[in-house]
Formats: sequence, C-alpha cells, structure tokens
Amino acid sequence: MNIDGKLIAKNLRDHLAVEVAELKASHGVQPSLTVIIVGDDPASHVYVKNKIKQTQEIGMISNEIVLPIDTTEEHLLNELEKLNSDNSVHGILVQLPLPKHLNENAVISAINPEKDVDGFHAVNSGKLFNGEEGGLVPCTPQGCILLAKEHLGTDLSGLHAVVIGRSNIVGKPVAMLLLQENCTITIAHSKTKNLAEVCKQADILVAAVGIANFVKADWVKDGATIIDVGINRITSETGVTKLVGDVDYDEVVSKCSAITPVPGGVGPMTIACLLSNTLIAAKKVAYN
Amino acid sequence: MNIDGKLIAKNLRDHLAVEVAELKASHGVQPSLTVIIVGDDPASHVYVKNKIKQTQEIGMISNEIVLPIDTTEEHLLNELEKLNSDNSVHGILVQLPLPKHLNENAVISAINPEKDVDGFHAVNSGKLFNGEEGGLVPCTPQGCILLAKEHLGTDLSGLHAVVIGRSNIVGKPVAMLLLQENCTITIAHSKTKNLAEVCKQADILVAAVGIANFVKADWVKDGATIIDVGINRITSETGVTKLVGDVDYDEVVSKCSAITPVPGGVGPMTIACLLSNTLIAAKKVAYN
Repeated sequence: MNIDGKLIAKNLRDHLAVEVAELKASHGVQPSLTVIIVGDDPASHVYVKNKIKQTQEIGMISNEIVLPIDTTEEHLLNELEKLNSDNSVHGILVQLPLPKHLNENAVISAINPEKDVDGFHAVNSGKLFNGEEGGLVPCTPQGCILLAKEHLGTDLSGLHAVVIGRSNIVGKPVAMLLLQENCTITIAHSKTKNLAEVCKQADILVAAVGIANFVKADWVKDGATIIDVGINRITSETGVTKLVGDVDYDEVVSKCSAITPVPGGVGPMTIACLLSNTLIAAKKVAYN
Repeated sequence: MNIDGKLIAKNLRDHLAVEVAELKASHGVQPSLTVIIVGDDPASHVYVKNKIKQTQEIGMISNEIVLPIDTTEEHLLNELEKLNSDNSVHGILVQLPLPKHLNENAVISAINPEKDVDGFHAVNSGKLFNGEEGGLVPCTPQGCILLAKEHLGTDLSGLHAVVIGRSNIVGKPVAMLLLQENCTITIAHSKTKNLAEVCKQADILVAAVGIANFVKADWVKDGATIIDVGINRITSETGVTKLVGDVDYDEVVSKCSAITPVPGGVGPMTIACLLSNTLIAAKKVAYN
C-alpha cells in the first residue's frame, strides 16, 4: 500500500493552522518565515514560491529576499545579521544550493540557531546527534519519521532501520532520529559491500541516494516499510519525462507492506515540517 | 592477537612530546590543559592525577582546579568563563560525572568549543556529525579508530562496523568516525533484536555497553577486529577483584583476528588522545 504523503502533509498543515491562530490569539505573535534566495535557479524559485504559498495559507507571515547571483558573502552575512536581530522574524531559511562563490557552511553558521528552521546549523546538528531537547530538526528527515509512524504506529522500538545514503541533509539525521526511536540503525552508502544483503535486513528501509529506481525487489524483506526520499527526473524511450524515486516502485510495491510514492510521498512533508519548525521557533519567542 | 593499546598510546605520547617541543621552539607556545574536578570521588581523582602526570611528561602545562562538592553551578560557570577568556589556557576539561545538583549539559555548553578538549560541546558534536573539519573529536572514540587502524591499516573503506552502545561519549561518535572512514555502520543497543546475528556481520565490532563479558564467541565473525571499550570491575568466586571488558575475552580471542585487551587496550588511548586534542587547540592559538 502507499503511504499518502500528500494527505499526511495536508493534515499536518491543517493542524499547524489551528495552532498558528491560537498563538496569535493568546500571545499576539504571528509566526513569520523569511526565505533568502540568491540567483535565478528556476527550480529553487519554484520551490520557494511553493513555500511562500503554504506559509501564507496556514496564517504565517512569509517574507522573501531575492538577491542577485553575484551577491558577495559579506553582503549575505550582513542580511542574516539583520534578520538574526529582528525580533519579528522567527524563521530564517537560505535556499540551497548557493552560487559556488559563497561558502554554504559559513552562511549556515551565521544563522541564529534558534531561527535555523532548516536545522542545518552545527548547534542543531549537535543537539540532534546528542539527543538533546530544544533543537530544530531538519525537515525531510522529520517527514520520513512521520510517514513511517503513520504506517507502523508510534512505537518503532527494536525495528531494524537501514538508511541508504549518508548526507548531512537526509541520511545521517534520519538515522539519528530512528536511533532516538529505539531502532537498530544501519547506514549504507556507495562504499557498502553486499548492499542488497544489508538492505534485506531492514524493517524500515530509507532510500536517500539520488539514483533513479536504484533499490530492487530482491533487496527488500517481505513486509518492510519503504521510505523513498529520492526525486529523480528520468526520460523514457518515448521522450516522456517523469519523476521517480530511488526505489523501483513497480517491482517493490508488491513485496513491501507500505511505500511512499514519488511524487506524493516524502516531498510534501518537507515544507509541512518547515512550517512546523517555524511554529516551534515562534512559540519559543512568544513564551519567553 | 592483542592490539597493544598501552604501547600505541605510548608511541602517540612520544610523538606528541616532539610536537610540543617544536611548537614551543617555533612559536613560543607551550600547550596547557586545565582540569576542573568537583567533589571527592576517588576514581575521578585517580584518573585526574594520571592525566596531570602524562600532560607534564610530554612537556605540556597542567593545571588542576579542585572545587568542593557543594560548588554552585553559578560558581562553576564563572570559573569556566575565566578560563575561556584566559589566552594561556588552551584546553579545558571538566571531569565527569559531576555531582547531581550540577547540570552537565549546561556546564559543557559553557566551555569555549575551541578549548573543549573532551569534544562534548554541541558545536564539536555537530561538526563531527556533519563531517566538518576543525572540530575537537571525543577522545575514547578517537582512540578506538587508531587501534582499529593499527591492525587493519589506514583504509577501513567498505568494512562493516557494528557498534554496540549508543552513548554520546562513545557509541554515537565512534560510529560517526567509522562512517567517515567509509565503513558501513550499524548501531545496536539494548532494544536491538537478534543482537548476536547483528554483531556477527561485523568486520569491526566495537563494544561500548558497560556489561562484563557481554559479547560471546558465537556473536563474532571469524577474523573480525574487536575493539572493547568496556571497563568493568568484577569479583570472582574466590573474592578476587579484576577488570574485564564488555567482550568475553577468553572465548573470543581465538575467533577474532585481533582484540583490544582490558586493561591495556582502549583505556590508555583516551588520555593520549586528550593530549593530542590539547596540542590541536594550542596550535590553533599559536598559528592565528
């Protein structure tokens, strides 16, 4: 069966809208998210437009700062400094990737960790890694856990989760979240030997590797839960372009007990979790 | 065969002593480590005494601040603030565990991350987790990697490492270091099902669970490399007390290709790596 990320994300946004209205009524605080986008990458602009729309739909304030592609690092850091000290800004997101002349690490480090709604600042990574409360958790990994729980229930304890991919944005944080849920975790990657055998142990298999249709049916244990983070654009022999995941859906769907489709699985959860982080950041300010 | 941690640690300290002398000659900087110990736990005092001795032996400056058991958190944080702003102090270590009325997280967070030679500050954990350069890496995990490489050579790529235990001090950081070495990693723990089966996949098995003689021969793959982090004090039927690891050494030694004995394996590496971190911190100051 499919895990319907589109519906689950909508339910989460509906829930957030109620909380946003309550926070405004009780504390006079309307959560606000500022997105900085540098340059004119079309995909980034589509994605940001989507974020703005959903932010506004649930009653949050959305601001967008568009900077030219030749923006200097100094200028960008100055903008961040202004946003850091602006009490009306609760969440700050710098749309990635940045143009190559800008150092992403330096830029992310310059965001106030309390406003870092992407959860990429070292302080937030460190808290996630240490299992400390109070950090902001990266959005896509958060979404993966919510989707897995939608199918498996809230108790994932003792399940063996295998994560393919070890990026800082998905692979490693999702593994840490699964560990916090008391899963046994395995992180596999391009250097892993016997990848099929390793994956076949998974009660929960998270694919975050960026290769179309990479995971095959004989890598999957009967009844496993599959979270497919990949979004790959492929062109068929007839010239039709479509999006597919990292998992060969047609092969795997009958073998597993549940799978997130692409599109409509993990994708929609990312923005919903971003909005959830923005609410958390705004609540911290309101309650202090 | 045994991996001789005592000898490897001594070689590392000898190497550090040369670097310390060179740094003093070239930059006039003598690395300095300050240890704060609160209360009168005898084990902690023995351990600190050992640290001081080894620090001095390799030509570093060692300072010890002993505070009474009823020290307030405010007082301790004030002491740390002074050390943070004292340019002659390169490394700061607060001996754990602290008395219960002191919040360990708050205390660790108050140490300047650049002087946090234990590597426990969230900024250092975050850098380790993100695979960023320039952080200070926790000492015992560092020692585990050095011991594994002593036997396996510098390239651990593609090996399957299983870590039993998920503490912030050992289990999780050692897993992250093994991942950086391109190992496939599995983190197992008290909630893991089929623990024996999981361990049996390990080319490198790290036991950091704190249970005497926990890992048995039939959990171990033929020819595996075993890193035993446990230090458990047991009393035999005849009343004799001895230290044993988390691995049933007598059973496992003939099955694996190499094992770190307890004592004399991981233990001696921890202080040597602490001194290595102190040198790194001092070099940063000297080269700036």
